[in-house]
Amino acid sequence: MSILVVGSLGLDSIETPHSSVKDALGGSAVYISISASYFSQNINLVGVVGSDFPDEYLQLLHNREVNLEGLQIVENERTFRWSCRYDCDMNSRETLSTELNVFKNFKPIIPESYCESKYIVLGNIDPELQIYVLNHLKNPKFIICDTMNYWIERKYEVLCELLTKVNLLLLNDLEARLLAKEFNLIRAGRSILKMGPQIIVIKKGEHGALMMTEDNYFIAPAYPLENIQDPTGAGDSFAGGLIGYIAKVGSFDKETLKRAVVYGSVMASFCVEKFSVDGLISLNDDNITERFHQFYGLTHFEV
Amino acid sequence: MSILVVGSLGLDSIETPHSSVKDALGGSAVYISISASYFSQNINLVGVVGSDFPDEYLQLLHNREVNLEGLQIVENERTFRWSCRYDCDMNSRETLSTELNVFKNFKPIIPESYCESKYIVLGNIDPELQIYVLNHLKNPKFIICDTMNYWIERKYEVLCELLTKVNLLLLNDLEARLLAKEFNLIRAGRSILKMGPQIIVIKKGEHGALMMTEDNYFIAPAYPLENIQDPTGAGDSFAGGLIGYIAKVGSFDKETLKRAVVYGSVMASFCVEKFSVDGLISLNDDNITERFHQFYGLTHFEV
Repeated sequence: MSILVVGSLGLDSIETPHSSVKDALGGSAVYISISASYFSQNINLVGVVGSDFPDEYLQLLHNREVNLEGLQIVENERTFRWSCRYDCDMNSRETLSTELNVFKNFKPIIPESYCESKYIVLGNIDPELQIYVLNHLKNPKFIICDTMNYWIERKYEVLCELLTKVNLLLLNDLEARLLAKEFNLIRAGRSILKMGPQIIVIKKGEHGALMMTEDNYFIAPAYPLENIQDPTGAGDSFAGGLIGYIAKVGSFDKETLKRAVVYGSVMASFCVEKFSVDGLISLNDDNITERFHQFYGLTHFEV
Repeated sequence: MSILVVGSLGLDSIETPHSSVKDALGGSAVYISISASYFSQNINLVGVVGSDFPDEYLQLLHNREVNLEGLQIVENERTFRWSCRYDCDMNSRETLSTELNVFKNFKPIIPESYCESKYIVLGNIDPELQIYVLNHLKNPKFIICDTMNYWIERKYEVLCELLTKVNLLLLNDLEARLLAKEFNLIRAGRSILKMGPQIIVIKKGEHGALMMTEDNYFIAPAYPLENIQDPTGAGDSFAGGLIGYIAKVGSFDKETLKRAVVYGSVMASFCVEKFSVDGLISLNDDNITERFHQFYGLTHFEV
């Protein structure tokens, strides 16, 4: 089933205590699309880059069979760039610079061929644009949106409108507390569920992910990794695994959603093992299935 | 099977953003013993209080059938007192005062009747005293010890000696990183396993608990609670459930240990729902079994 992904494409410069990369392939739409491509064909990407965006990065998305008809390439402008430095615990990071460049005036263009997409991921961009994209879709079956503190603080009203239109909101624990104005994470989640989405998934980094619905909780741990190279893109890889698996199964009943959260966690674990998208691009189905079963072993006990 | 518990008994004064208590029953040995008493009889407590320790608190331990033969009551001295204030997120706390009082010169006395105890919890006290207690036991089957940053920083050598004598080390994530001098929690755990214990359980508060052995991981989440009254004693209630279930089953194979970690998490979840030991004292077997099954539902998915 077809998946539409809208979000950023960027050139990331990342420093960790152990290593660094410059102008590596990054951006939410990139991580989401590559991750989802292991589960589903017909990944329709919507985004924007400058004419400096390396051909090899386009080729890499082509190789994963990501449809780039909705990718705008703006002549004589520079691609979105972001740089950050991770602390020694690899959990907290400091943004060193953000150059919006082509992203500043980004207006998504949804090709006619994308309008029938059934499974939608609205990556973390201005909620006005997220709504704009939704308005172009004919009959979406399942919509995931991501957001961040920046939009919660600056576009609260529009974000609230968006939340009435989506099935699943993905956000991290700090964002959940900020959005709900509530310290207790469970009460925060309850309160966000009342704002519209039937499902919320709270990403807690090395502590895993919590899915909440009106009448159920599901908790997936993070995979225990001895070597984390670069946490960038973990949340978006999670989103890609989540939507990819849902689109593959073609339903979103309770049991499918649980497995989708685990597949999201699997993809996030591969992502952080290497810099940029390197942990994602050379996987095969066996790698993914094996780690999925390892996740089962991490939490399973006999009652 | 008989369980020996050594640790503190104290009068705790706790402030949270919502409420407070003064001179409430507290201390590691108290939480561990009460929690374990739901799984096993013959809980042998070793500790010390002053003559100001309220009779009603002794009665409460009696009611849970905790054996107090090893409890020293020092005339004309004051009981250990501790006071703290929790932040609005209920995760971080500030110690306001610590009065060691009778605890300053505490030397455990192990009654003859305790020496055959098979299951041992060495609560968080000076590792010299933890070793002293071990040296008085005839043939212990399974030994859990707890510790804290204070001893890691001040009694590192003695603590290392202790670690060669125990089966399971219980500590929190910060303590694990400190003890192993390693930021990555999984590498920290691996490194601590080389120091002696066959099993370590890393407590992560609201993020649950991670059990590591040479060849296995097991992760239990924390129970999602909308109302946390007082996190004090959660780790010790966890330890009580852990040892209580192991002693009840009488073995510590892989599957028993997993369930023991879940029962530990169950008891911790009841503990934090009320101030002091109030969340623990009025439970029954059905409450515990029901929440154990709820834990199963939190992480279980079909492969």
